[in-house]
Amino acid sequence: MYGGIEAGGTKFVCAVGTGPDDLSEMVRFPTTTPEETIGKVIAYFKNQPHSLKGIGIASFGPIDPNPSSESFGYITSTPKLLWQQTDLVGPIKKAFDVPVGFDTDVNGAALSEVRWGAAQDVASSVYFTVGTGIGGGAVVNGKTINGLLHPEMGHMRIPRVEGDDFKGHCPFHGPCLEGMATGPALKARWGMPAETLPEDHIAWDYEAHYLAMAVVNTILVLSPERIIMGGGVMDQKQLFPKIRARVQKALNGYVDSEVITKNINRYIVPPGLGNRAGVLGAILLGELAAG
Amino acid sequence: MYGGIEAGGTKFVCAVGTGPDDLSEMVRFPTTTPEETIGKVIAYFKNQPHSLKGIGIASFGPIDPNPSSESFGYITSTPKLLWQQTDLVGPIKKAFDVPVGFDTDVNGAALSEVRWGAAQDVASSVYFTVGTGIGGGAVVNGKTINGLLHPEMGHMRIPRVEGDDFKGHCPFHGPCLEGMATGPALKARWGMPAETLPEDHIAWDYEAHYLAMAVVNTILVLSPERIIMGGGVMDQKQLFPKIRARVQKALNGYVDSEVITKNINRYIVPPGLGNRAGVLGAILLGELAAG
Repeated sequence: MYGGIEAGGTKFVCAVGTGPDDLSEMVRFPTTTPEETIGKVIAYFKNQPHSLKGIGIASFGPIDPNPSSESFGYITSTPKLLWQQTDLVGPIKKAFDVPVGFDTDVNGAALSEVRWGAAQDVASSVYFTVGTGIGGGAVVNGKTINGLLHPEMGHMRIPRVEGDDFKGHCPFHGPCLEGMATGPALKARWGMPAETLPEDHIAWDYEAHYLAMAVVNTILVLSPERIIMGGGVMDQKQLFPKIRARVQKALNGYVDSEVITKNINRYIVPPGLGNRAGVLGAILLGELAAG
Repeated sequence: MYGGIEAGGTKFVCAVGTGPDDLSEMVRFPTTTPEETIGKVIAYFKNQPHSLKGIGIASFGPIDPNPSSESFGYITSTPKLLWQQTDLVGPIKKAFDVPVGFDTDVNGAALSEVRWGAAQDVASSVYFTVGTGIGGGAVVNGKTINGLLHPEMGHMRIPRVEGDDFKGHCPFHGPCLEGMATGPALKARWGMPAETLPEDHIAWDYEAHYLAMAVVNTILVLSPERIIMGGGVMDQKQLFPKIRARVQKALNGYVDSEVITKNINRYIVPPGLGNRAGVLGAILLGELAAG
């Protein structure tokens, strides 16, 4: 058995298991102070009847995922002030003395979708989540991408819809992808919550443009075999055909693969694991850490 | 000894060796017809006194680098009509019966720069070449990126300099990165060859903007530990400080690593292997194929 911790900005989700067919009930704790939240996580795993061979943490970021770094295992420069420079791996390792895997929430989800979900027939994938923020994780050559830090795909710079002069909602970059396409950006631009915008509102054409540009750039940089798009905003299912059409039009046949030119419905897809992708990714990180 | 073939759109470069300290003289053949050019390459290696354990090909693209595909080893949908659907690996394998490695020219260069060049102290890198076209290759987790196809970073979509209305020079995408920032795009926009534009011409500020946006997106998607920029346009050394400054400004501290915020002079750098990066990459692909 492995333990999984999906560490999110609003809630932590914990479970134990070995995969989607063998997963305990997921328990949720609101993200309050680090001490209180991590304390509840530790108490949860202490109360498990199973002995755990490894624990994985798939965390909101930015994080330090580099095992040779002094701040490995930390959430680093997050805008959530209480959580800046918070050691996540340290307290878990101290409490359980098992191998602890650590990566971003979206890298974890990308990994679990390749193992068990919507990308299980391929070896590489990108996982986008579009909600109050935008995150992107990737699996390449069987591993998640970590280098200098980790992907931060939500902040890509993309061209505007012609004539669109919305100044953008990202405090760091104004009109980057997050600045144009998160739920709060939609609300700031159109004056109503995203989920109340009618299905045929032009907002969704704009939204599809910005997300399609990010997908196009991701294809051109990473050439993933599948792109998975989840998160609250992607519950607007009318976005999928709009995004697919714009990706095809923007690439204009240049990436000459039938996967894109003919079968894009099976290339840009919703998550296969639903809201379990994160905690299953964490369990997988625990398994990988245990070796 | 390994054989290396850098297959370029204007010339093929061949050499034998094991690395930069043990590299034969490089020989060059103009890229004419596939039959003639590949014939010269085969004759060159047949005349070598050394027996070769493997041969690598680092090729212009698009190519099919997927060993399980029917068209593995082919140059595929290139605009160079004579070379469309040309099998490169097949004739080499037939002539020499040794393992043959195959990847893009820029993936090969990224690989050789990590082994021997400007990225030898890190494990991941991106290699851009900016000349008559723009290519990008990447090494992640010790391997080059190949997935659906291979990276085509030159065609990324990026925001314009405010007020810039140049329609772009890419036949597929108009104002993509290649459409705005290659040598021919510079010539089409400013009415004079890029190399004759004065060092203080505003063209170089525009150029730095477009290249910086591509670098920013690459950092946000891939988080590489080093970015290497070569090719004819990058011989304009005034571009490096301009690009570095724009990358820092655009990221605005969000990617919170001193590598970017303080030491960017050592992060965005020229190639360490100069014009040998390509053929050394090919030799490395031969070594990797030989196992």
